[in-house]
Amino acid sequence: MSSNPVLVEAWRGGVVESRHRGACAVVDAQGRVLWSVGDIDHPVFPRSAVKLLQALPLVASGAADAFHLDDAALALACASHGGEEAHVRTARSVLQRAGLDEGALECGTHWPYFEPAARALAAAGRQPCPLHNNCSGKHAGFLCLGAHLAGGREPRGFVAGYVRRGHPLMREVEHALQTATGWDLATAPCGTDGCSIPTHAIPLRHLALAFARAGTGVGLPPELARAAQRLRAAIARHPFLVAGSERMDTQLMQALGERLCCKVGAEGMYCAALPEAGLGVALKIDDGAARAAEAALAALAQALLPLDDAAAAAVGDWNPRRLINWQGLEVGALRATEALRPADAAARRTPGSLPG
Amino acid sequence: MSSNPVLVEAWRGGVVESRHRGACAVVDAQGRVLWSVGDIDHPVFPRSAVKLLQALPLVASGAADAFHLDDAALALACASHGGEEAHVRTARSVLQRAGLDEGALECGTHWPYFEPAARALAAAGRQPCPLHNNCSGKHAGFLCLGAHLAGGREPRGFVAGYVRRGHPLMREVEHALQTATGWDLATAPCGTDGCSIPTHAIPLRHLALAFARAGTGVGLPPELARAAQRLRAAIARHPFLVAGSERMDTQLMQALGERLCCKVGAEGMYCAALPEAGLGVALKIDDGAARAAEAALAALAQALLPLDDAAAAAVGDWNPRRLINWQGLEVGALRATEALRPADAAARRTPGSLPG
Repeated sequence: MSSNPVLVEAWRGGVVESRHRGACAVVDAQGRVLWSVGDIDHPVFPRSAVKLLQALPLVASGAADAFHLDDAALALACASHGGEEAHVRTARSVLQRAGLDEGALECGTHWPYFEPAARALAAAGRQPCPLHNNCSGKHAGFLCLGAHLAGGREPRGFVAGYVRRGHPLMREVEHALQTATGWDLATAPCGTDGCSIPTHAIPLRHLALAFARAGTGVGLPPELARAAQRLRAAIARHPFLVAGSERMDTQLMQALGERLCCKVGAEGMYCAALPEAGLGVALKIDDGAARAAEAALAALAQALLPLDDAAAAAVGDWNPRRLINWQGLEVGALRATEALRPADAAARRTPGSLPG
Repeated sequence: MSSNPVLVEAWRGGVVESRHRGACAVVDAQGRVLWSVGDIDHPVFPRSAVKLLQALPLVASGAADAFHLDDAALALACASHGGEEAHVRTARSVLQRAGLDEGALECGTHWPYFEPAARALAAAGRQPCPLHNNCSGKHAGFLCLGAHLAGGREPRGFVAGYVRRGHPLMREVEHALQTATGWDLATAPCGTDGCSIPTHAIPLRHLALAFARAGTGVGLPPELARAAQRLRAAIARHPFLVAGSERMDTQLMQALGERLCCKVGAEGMYCAALPEAGLGVALKIDDGAARAAEAALAALAQALLPLDDAAAAAVGDWNPRRLINWQGLEVGALRATEALRPADAAARRTPGSLPG
C-alpha cells in the first residue's frame, strides 16, 4: 500500500513531534470527487462514523413512528456518547418504548467514556451497565427496529442475537448502508466492531458519497432520503446526545446546526454531510488516531463552509488544537497540514460551479 | 522528512485496519548500530522514556544516600506510574525524607492514569493531588537532588521553579542526559514536557547509545555507571512502582528482571537497556501511539533476548496483542510487522561477534 500524505502534525518546542498520515474524500451526491488527498479507493472500516446510515431503517421502516420516538431518541440512535446522565436516561426510555430493557442490549458494558461521568458513577457506589456503553443509543434504535420487524412475535425472542450478521435486523441495517454507499457489502471484508455488530470495509470515496446523499437526499430512495433528513434535524436539535461534554461532534454541531452533520468513528474515522454545499466528506487517519481525525475534519469544515465569528471560534478550537500540560502551560499544538489546504479550492463555491 | 516503514499493524476482520510507522535503533555501548529501521538520525523528544537517565544525578550526587532512599524510592524516580496507592505512598515518603511535601511538586495534578485507581479515589470522595501525577516520583527525586544541592540553604526556597531550564537542579539533570547520550543539548530543539520540565530532541541513535551505556556502564563516568547500575537493580526489584497495574513495563520486568530495563515515553517513545546483550534500544512511532510503541518494543525483546516459556508468555501478551471488544469477543490484533523481523539477525549473538 502506498504512503498517504501527512494530514496532521503535533508540534512541540517549535518542531514537529508526531505526524499523522491519512486520506480524505470530498464528494457530491452524483459521486463526483471535488477534492481528495491520499488513497480514497482502499476500503476502510467506517466503524461508528456511519451510525446515521445505520439508523436509516429505524425511521424508514416506520419503527420510529410506531414507538413514538422523539428527536432525542433519534439523535441518540446516531451517537457515540459519553455515558452521561442524559445519554443513559434517553437510551433507557427508547428501550422502554419498545417494551424492552437493558437486558436486551448486546453491545457490552464499559465505564462512561466521559471520565467525570465515570467517576461520578463510582462516587455513587455504582457500576456501569450496557446503557453506559457509548453505542447504547444505536443499539436501542436497533432493538426498536427489531421489535417493529417482529410484528406479532414476542420481541425479546426475535431480537436475540441481533448483532450477528445475517440476523433479519442486521440485514436491514446492512441493506441501508449498501444502498447509501453504493458499495457491495456482500464481498467486502467484514470485521466485528467494538459493540459486536459487523463493520464492512468501504472506500472513503463511497462513504463520502453516502454522506453527500444523506445530506441532500439526492440519489437515495425517497424513504431513505426522508429518514436521513429527519435524523439530521434530530441531531441538529440534540447535538449533546450525539457525543457529549468536551466532544468535537457536539461542539461543532452546537455552533453549526444543520449546516454540518459530522460523526467520529473509532480508528481515526470521520464522516460528515455538508448539506448547503451538497457535499459529503469521509476521512481516515492511517494510524487510527482520534485527535488527528478531529483536527482534519475541523480543517475541512474551515475550508468548505463560510463561518461567522462564533462558528469559526468553535471550529477553531479543534484546528489548530492547543496542547496544554498538567500545569496549564501551552506546550504545543495539533495542526492540519498544507495537504488539507487544497480543500480551500473547493470551498465557498456552489456545487453547480464545480467541475464534473 | 522521508517516510518511515510500517512497524506495527492493527488487524480486524482479516485485514489491516490501521498502521503505525516508526524508526528504531539497536546500538551497543561503543555506538555501533547493530540494527536499525527508519530514520534514526532525526532528533525526537524522548519524553518520559529517559527517566532513568534523568535520575542518574539523584544517585551520583550522593543525594539518594544522604536522604536514605531505598530501592522503592529509586524505582519510583524512574516511573510513569498509574497513581495507585503504592505509588502515591512512596512519592510522599520520598518528599518527607527531603523535608518537603507535595506542595513543592511542580508537575501539576491529574487523576490517576490507572482508571480503577481514579474511580476508587472518586468513590472515597477525594480529589487527586500532584502525588497522583504519573511523574510525581521523578519530581520527588528531583526535589531530593535539589534539597541536597541546596546544602545549608532552606530547601524549599532553593528548589522553587526547579522545572525551568537553567535552574541549577535541571542543569544537573541536563548534564547527565548529555553525558549519557553524547548529544549536544545546548543547540537541540527543546520543548516543555507534560510535567513542565524541558524535553530535548535527541536522535534515536544517541538514545539507544545512552541505554547501552546505562545497561553496561561502558562509556560512562564511573559515578554515572554506578548510579545506572543501582537504578536498574532498584527497578528490577520494584517493577510495579515503575508503571503499575496492566502496564507493559511492569509486566515485562516482572518476567525478565534485570535482563530488560525498559521505559515508555509519551508520543510513541520507548527506550530499553538489554545488559546481557550489551545493547540499547530506542524507538519512536511517528504518530505517537503508545499501543504501537509497546508492540514494537515487545517484538524487539522477542528478537533480541532468549526467552524461556514464562518470559515468552509475558512478552507475547504484547505482541501480537489481542484486541478484545466490550462483549469479550476477540476482534483483531495489534502486530509488529516484518520490518521489525531483521532484528532476529542481531539476536542471540554475543556482542563481540557482531560487525563493527
